[in-house]
Amino acid sequence: MTLYANRPAVQALQPSLIRKLSNSAIGRTDVIPLWFGEPDKPTPEFIRQAAKDAIDEGQTFYQPNLGIIELRLALANYMNGLYDVRLSAENIAVTPSGMSALALALQCIVAQGDTVVAPSPVWPNLPAAAEILGATIARVPIRPSCGKWQLDLDELFAACAPNTSALLINSPNNPTGWMLDDAEQQMIIDFCRERELWLIADEVYNRIVYDREYAPSFVDKLTEDDKYLIINSFSKSWAMTGWRLGWLTAPKSLISTLEIVAEFNYSCIFAPVQIAGITALEQGEAFVRQSVARYRTALAAVESCFSGLPRVEFPAPRAAFYAFFSVDGVDDSYAFAEKVLQESGVGLAPGAAFGPEGEGYLRLCFAAEAPLIERALSKLLPLLS
Amino acid sequence: MTLYANRPAVQALQPSLIRKLSNSAIGRTDVIPLWFGEPDKPTPEFIRQAAKDAIDEGQTFYQPNLGIIELRLALANYMNGLYDVRLSAENIAVTPSGMSALALALQCIVAQGDTVVAPSPVWPNLPAAAEILGATIARVPIRPSCGKWQLDLDELFAACAPNTSALLINSPNNPTGWMLDDAEQQMIIDFCRERELWLIADEVYNRIVYDREYAPSFVDKLTEDDKYLIINSFSKSWAMTGWRLGWLTAPKSLISTLEIVAEFNYSCIFAPVQIAGITALEQGEAFVRQSVARYRTALAAVESCFSGLPRVEFPAPRAAFYAFFSVDGVDDSYAFAEKVLQESGVGLAPGAAFGPEGEGYLRLCFAAEAPLIERALSKLLPLLS
Repeated sequence: MTLYANRPAVQALQPSLIRKLSNSAIGRTDVIPLWFGEPDKPTPEFIRQAAKDAIDEGQTFYQPNLGIIELRLALANYMNGLYDVRLSAENIAVTPSGMSALALALQCIVAQGDTVVAPSPVWPNLPAAAEILGATIARVPIRPSCGKWQLDLDELFAACAPNTSALLINSPNNPTGWMLDDAEQQMIIDFCRERELWLIADEVYNRIVYDREYAPSFVDKLTEDDKYLIINSFSKSWAMTGWRLGWLTAPKSLISTLEIVAEFNYSCIFAPVQIAGITALEQGEAFVRQSVARYRTALAAVESCFSGLPRVEFPAPRAAFYAFFSVDGVDDSYAFAEKVLQESGVGLAPGAAFGPEGEGYLRLCFAAEAPLIERALSKLLPLLS
Repeated sequence: MTLYANRPAVQALQPSLIRKLSNSAIGRTDVIPLWFGEPDKPTPEFIRQAAKDAIDEGQTFYQPNLGIIELRLALANYMNGLYDVRLSAENIAVTPSGMSALALALQCIVAQGDTVVAPSPVWPNLPAAAEILGATIARVPIRPSCGKWQLDLDELFAACAPNTSALLINSPNNPTGWMLDDAEQQMIIDFCRERELWLIADEVYNRIVYDREYAPSFVDKLTEDDKYLIINSFSKSWAMTGWRLGWLTAPKSLISTLEIVAEFNYSCIFAPVQIAGITALEQGEAFVRQSVARYRTALAAVESCFSGLPRVEFPAPRAAFYAFFSVDGVDDSYAFAEKVLQESGVGLAPGAAFGPEGEGYLRLCFAAEAPLIERALSKLLPLLS
């Protein structure tokens, strides 16, 4: 007998197309895997050492739901240093991943029957985490225009219906590298205030930016009276994907709700992981800069290769570490990614994984050494020419 | 402006009375804290070493949603060794805590408007995790009778209504130490089969048992055709509360659903924590036995003290590490726990934290060295005499 989840919202969830494709390559040792959104190197040694020291000290007991106060303070200081804002620890909830931060935020805000408006293509977990709560996603396309990704704000605002409870915005965007500028963020906040909508912003790529030092953030345009939740994570900036450490920034008056919801989802986070996070914040700036420089070199290799391929359209990413490109004649991205995997051994993510707006595209993660990216590109060349 | 969560189910959640009381003692250094459900000692060194080795090896990348295969296999082997059952890795989903296992199980099964039937008093997170999904809890009392905690199964079955989707049973029970026997478990399974109800069993205390070696489990009475999810955790058996590592046992056909729901809740678990879990399973049996012996000694101290106090009624726990006792004349457990804290410096959990059925009771965690428990008891004596 096959058993099914009782809940229709859960029955309707689709497994990741990226994972489906990568599962098909299990056991193959010749694959260059550029399908996941993960830096190629382990977490820096000084961050790992901090976790080991905490384990040695016996920090193996329960911790507060919202995170240890030292990390919440360090995060407030970090955000205050990066942006023109004065957050305190009471604005911060530490979470066991950016994904958990997103799930927690949505559990507070989004009810069955709500609509959530989200620019797309987008990391599939964003819409899915709202759908799991019984919400419907209204997708607003991010489109390439004159070699740049663009979101039409009028279209975004027009998508908001009476049953819309939140805007869910991922900027810098995975997979496109699209990024809101400050003026656009202000317009979105004004709209949310007028319509009393929640703003849920996923800013996990805010340190991986190529045309300035850090991405514009909603955080320095919001007040304690605004309905907002900002998601961030240690994963991308400090190469800590596997550690499962993220945080929410929120108005102080919402923190006691987050504390209760955290208790009934995961309760708390391993102290050594949190202490590693403090070390990343306090000693990790050089690593962040070196990483971005490394990704910029890899991006240049992609741009140089793709610019010589007339079939490839590649709107340049301003941020994140993905090349999201289309290939003339390709309208089934999963089938093409499968063909690419079989014929070249390069693992790309199919654009359809990021919503219907991503169909026809492929995502290549270039968070790796330039020589590896160049080797992958040379293997891809016959398929893209 | 004070902001509130949009969702009524979240607005209705109450913060923990245990946490409320313990927060009132922050800064006090003279308190003997017996209010939380946590062993007094850090995780054994050999388990901590395994995590540090994995960190040294650079195991800092994303992991599979369901846990690393080595841990899933180790868990299947562990369960097969303990019970008369033949699980495989496809029956196991590793989760970032028992709490997460519970949240994940309920997300699959419990929809808005459902009723979930649960014996009570019970760990407050069990009902709350269902309530957060919009479900209603029907509590069936576990009562003291002839010095023992008892659940009337006819009463349990009578509480199941047409909109009941699941039985949610915590045996061995926190806070009472009540435990189902094998025959009772079989009757519950028969009833669930007949009524096509899901059985969600929280068995996290299955190794902390005083009248036999391990607690009866539903697992060896269920088949691949049964609708069940069993929650377990490394927290209590191996003193790993802070690590956040648990697991679900489920029919194989449900595992792909759990995989997707895990992806959209927390995605995966830090590999060094999982490797520590393997080490606990493979090398931790002596530690489990020593711990139970230690708790038995502490329990004997409690029993010896309470048996001489006519005002105290203390039905003996068969399992877990809590003394759940009533005091003649006490009908407001929070007020009394506050008084106990102020006058004796001993931190007890108020029984009301575990549901209305717990009112009038207090919970003392005796997962500590006997001399500490004896010191706490001597401080409590004037208040209980």
